[in-house]
Amino acid sequence: MNDPVSTPPGAARSIGQVCLVGAGPGSADLITVRGARRLAEADLVLYDALASEEMRVYAPAARWFFVGKRACRQSIEQDVLNRLLIKYARRGLKVVRLKCGDPFVFGRGGEEALALARAGVPFEIVPGVSTAVAAPALAGIPVTHRGLASSFLVVTGHHEATYAPILDGLPPGSATLVVMMGLGQRGRIAERLAARGWSAETPAAVVVGAATPQSWRWLGTLGALGAAEIPAASSGAPGMLIIGAVVGLAAELASELSSANVDLTKREQQL
Amino acid sequence: MNDPVSTPPGAARSIGQVCLVGAGPGSADLITVRGARRLAEADLVLYDALASEEMRVYAPAARWFFVGKRACRQSIEQDVLNRLLIKYARRGLKVVRLKCGDPFVFGRGGEEALALARAGVPFEIVPGVSTAVAAPALAGIPVTHRGLASSFLVVTGHHEATYAPILDGLPPGSATLVVMMGLGQRGRIAERLAARGWSAETPAAVVVGAATPQSWRWLGTLGALGAAEIPAASSGAPGMLIIGAVVGLAAELASELSSANVDLTKREQQL
Repeated sequence: MNDPVSTPPGAARSIGQVCLVGAGPGSADLITVRGARRLAEADLVLYDALASEEMRVYAPAARWFFVGKRACRQSIEQDVLNRLLIKYARRGLKVVRLKCGDPFVFGRGGEEALALARAGVPFEIVPGVSTAVAAPALAGIPVTHRGLASSFLVVTGHHEATYAPILDGLPPGSATLVVMMGLGQRGRIAERLAARGWSAETPAAVVVGAATPQSWRWLGTLGALGAAEIPAASSGAPGMLIIGAVVGLAAELASELSSANVDLTKREQQL
Repeated sequence: MNDPVSTPPGAARSIGQVCLVGAGPGSADLITVRGARRLAEADLVLYDALASEEMRVYAPAARWFFVGKRACRQSIEQDVLNRLLIKYARRGLKVVRLKCGDPFVFGRGGEEALALARAGVPFEIVPGVSTAVAAPALAGIPVTHRGLASSFLVVTGHHEATYAPILDGLPPGSATLVVMMGLGQRGRIAERLAARGWSAETPAAVVVGAATPQSWRWLGTLGALGAAEIPAASSGAPGMLIIGAVVGLAAELASELSSANVDLTKREQQL
C-alpha cells in the first residue's frame, strides 16, 4: 500500500480522490478495464457484498474493507460510509468505492457522489455493467429485440406504492419489464399485470444471482410466475423478474450459449 | 492471427465460436476485462461504427472488419452479417462480434444470437456497459436516486407510434425517462409529456456521444428541451434525452467530477 502523501504543517493538505467503480453483475472479469485499473492504483477499497472476492487480484496491495449489506442489513450507515470516503480522500488516499453492478443504478452511488461533491472531494464515476441488463442477457434474454420489444422498464419490487402506478400505466406487453429485487412480490406483481390486461401466456422469467456461482433461473409464463418455486440455495441471492415477449427467446438462445454461460445452463439442468 | 484449424477431408469440421461482446459506451477502457480477453483470443473481429479504434490494441493480430452503420445506414444487411458470423465460425475461427454498448440493448444482438443458435454455432454473450445508463452517469446523472427516482424507462425515439402509448401511460415524474436516439424528436416528446401533465420545470438533459471524444451535453428543463440547440459538431453522434428529477443533480455532481470525466466538462464549458 502506498503511504498517504505527507504534508508539512501549515501546508495545504494534499487531497486524494474517490472513484465510484461499478463491479458489474458478479464475475470478476465483468468489471471494466478502467475499473480494474483504478483498483490497481487504489490505496483503499470499500466494497459491497456482491463484489467478487476474486476482484482482489486487481488490487492485492490495497486495504479492502467490506461496507455492504449482510443479511439484507447495511453493515454501516450510509452517512457513516460517506464520511469515511471523505476522510480517507482528505488524507491523500486513492479510494475506490466498489459497487455491485453500476454505481448509479439502485446503488446509492448518487448519494455518495453528492456527499463528495459537497465536501469538495474530487471523484470519478466508472460505469459498470448493470445487473438489470446483464443478468437477463446471461440467461439468454435480450431486453430489447426487433419486433418484440423496443423499450424496457426497470423498477424495484420493494415498495408496491412506488411501482404500482407505473405498472398500472404501462400498456400490456408494450415494454420488457425488469423488476429488481422482485422475488418476494412475484405473485402480487403477476396478479396486478393480469388484472391490467397482460396475457397469462406472456413469457416470464426469474433470474437469481446474475453472474455469480449462485446463479439460477426459471422460465415460464406470467400466469405461472406467482407459483414459481425458488430453490433454497438461491433464495438468499438478489433476484429479478423479467416479463415480456423477449423472455420467449431464452429457451432457443440458451441451446447454444456456451463458455462463460455454460455454468448457468448446467446449474439449471441440475435443479 | 491463429490459423483456422485444418481438418482432413471427410472429417467432422472443427467449429469455432462467436462471441457477442459489448464494447461499452465509447472509451476503449470501458469494455469489460472479459471482453478484452475475448478480443485477445480472436481471429476475426466484426465491429460497429462506435467501437473505438483504440480497441484494436486488445486484438492487434486479429483481422478487423467494419460492419456497422455509416451515415445512419447499415453498411451490410443484417442477414448478410448473420451469415458471415456463421461462415467464419464454421471455418473454425474465433469470431468476436463487437457491438456498441451492450449487445442486447438496441443492438440487434438477439437477432445475431438467434441466427447462431439456429445454425448450431456455439456462441457466448459478454455483456457491456450500456450507453443507456453510462452516458447519463458520465454526465453526472444517476438514473435512480433515493427520494427522486426508483425506476427508469428506456425507449427509442425512432417511432412515435411505439413510444407514445408508453409515455402516455407513465404517471408524470414517476420514473426517469431515457430516450435513446431521441434528438430529432425532442420537441414532440417534450410537448407530449407536458400535455400528459409533466411539469415544464422537470429537469431534462441532452447527452450526445456518451464516452466518446465527441461527447456533449445540455442541461435544462422539459419546457426548454424542444428549443435546445445541438452544436453541429455533435449532431451526427447518437444522442439521448434524459428527463426526470435526477437530472437536477447533474450540475452539483459535475462540480467535482474529475479525471476521465474532465474532458466532458471542459468540452461543455467551451461550447
